[in-house]
Amino acid sequence: MRMSELSSRSGVAVPSIKFYLREGILPAGERTSPNQSSYDERHVARLKIIRALIEVGGLSISSAKGVLAAVDDTEMPIDWAFGQAQRAIPGSLVLDEESEESPAALNEELAARSWAISAGNPGRAMVARVLGSYERLGHPELAAVLPAYLDAAETVARADLAAVAASEDRARMIETVVVGTVLGDSLFAGLRRIAQERESRSLFPAPPHIDADCDDDALEAPHE
Amino acid sequence: MRMSELSSRSGVAVPSIKFYLREGILPAGERTSPNQSSYDERHVARLKIIRALIEVGGLSISSAKGVLAAVDDTEMPIDWAFGQAQRAIPGSLVLDEESEESPAALNEELAARSWAISAGNPGRAMVARVLGSYERLGHPELAAVLPAYLDAAETVARADLAAVAASEDRARMIETVVVGTVLGDSLFAGLRRIAQERESRSLFPAPPHIDADCDDDALEAPHE
Repeated sequence: MRMSELSSRSGVAVPSIKFYLREGILPAGERTSPNQSSYDERHVARLKIIRALIEVGGLSISSAKGVLAAVDDTEMPIDWAFGQAQRAIPGSLVLDEESEESPAALNEELAARSWAISAGNPGRAMVARVLGSYERLGHPELAAVLPAYLDAAETVARADLAAVAASEDRARMIETVVVGTVLGDSLFAGLRRIAQERESRSLFPAPPHIDADCDDDALEAPHE
Repeated sequence: MRMSELSSRSGVAVPSIKFYLREGILPAGERTSPNQSSYDERHVARLKIIRALIEVGGLSISSAKGVLAAVDDTEMPIDWAFGQAQRAIPGSLVLDEESEESPAALNEELAARSWAISAGNPGRAMVARVLGSYERLGHPELAAVLPAYLDAAETVARADLAAVAASEDRARMIETVVVGTVLGDSLFAGLRRIAQERESRSLFPAPPHIDADCDDDALEAPHE
């Protein structure tokens, strides 16, 4: 197929396709004339992953390259691909370059559960940064959520790995790791906002009257 | 105190303080001479929240203004402040301007739990976007994680609200909502990576030999 069809099939605009070709994350098509190349289903599939990583997941080009290398390297063990995806994904935090110690509160919690986690797991730095911020902002008591959050993280990770293990072949498995790791953070963040509204309503009953200048949506009747 | 001391006390650089003053999100100090103002503890506290919102949480100036208005408006009900913070916070997704329907899979799950959630809850759009991406990327099976994720979100939201309810006064309570909502997403994302490593190790035992060019950290002995 031509580039215009590749664009409509993948949902990626032509200038972006040209950019991904130049950056080498999308392999070149088969040249059919000096100014034209032909693309196939593999290009469509590749562009869909690129779109997930860069346009939806917010990865930089160089991070996406690392993750796609993990997708392409069939020698790479599956748990290693998990680590590659994990390391590539920007948190909602902008992490400092400085190396951060794994926080004592986290280490104690992991030891209590007998969880053996590598020193290089990027989650350690993310947790360190947030607990450090809670401390600096005068909210050290927020660290008390750690055990409940870790219970919830275990539930989520089990569902993540079950989805990975259910994949029919190795390439598909790594694709599931990448897509699910990138997008799963946002899925959970969305569900957290939903669950917060529900808990908030049961703890703090809504006032009888809402100001006219407030957005009516938020206290409207339930959606269903 | 002078601006230089305000800077060292709050950890916010002087040019940033000047910017926040110009933008009106930091109230002016008391003018002591034509070129000098005096600041107090309220300015230190305010700058710490601004830092959390903008420099750590990644909010835009206009989003931060909305959240700070919720902090300042003592008439605003507490569950409303929750909504303000929720709406202001960018997900790891860049959400489209287009309005998105709440997905059927989510509505069914909420109905099964009898959760009454407003149509305007921003979590609905985040979930819609992710499930839509799973579909477009050819991974609709990833939507199967929804019930487990929602269970986990309930656990997390309960811990969030317990932290809010434990705050000693109303101003502090809203501050907890804002800080905990902004930073809690990153805290959970970090713990998810840790829990994924643990689940991944138990499902896919590590290979006996690691290539020399791999980063040793990730398969090292446990940290403790």
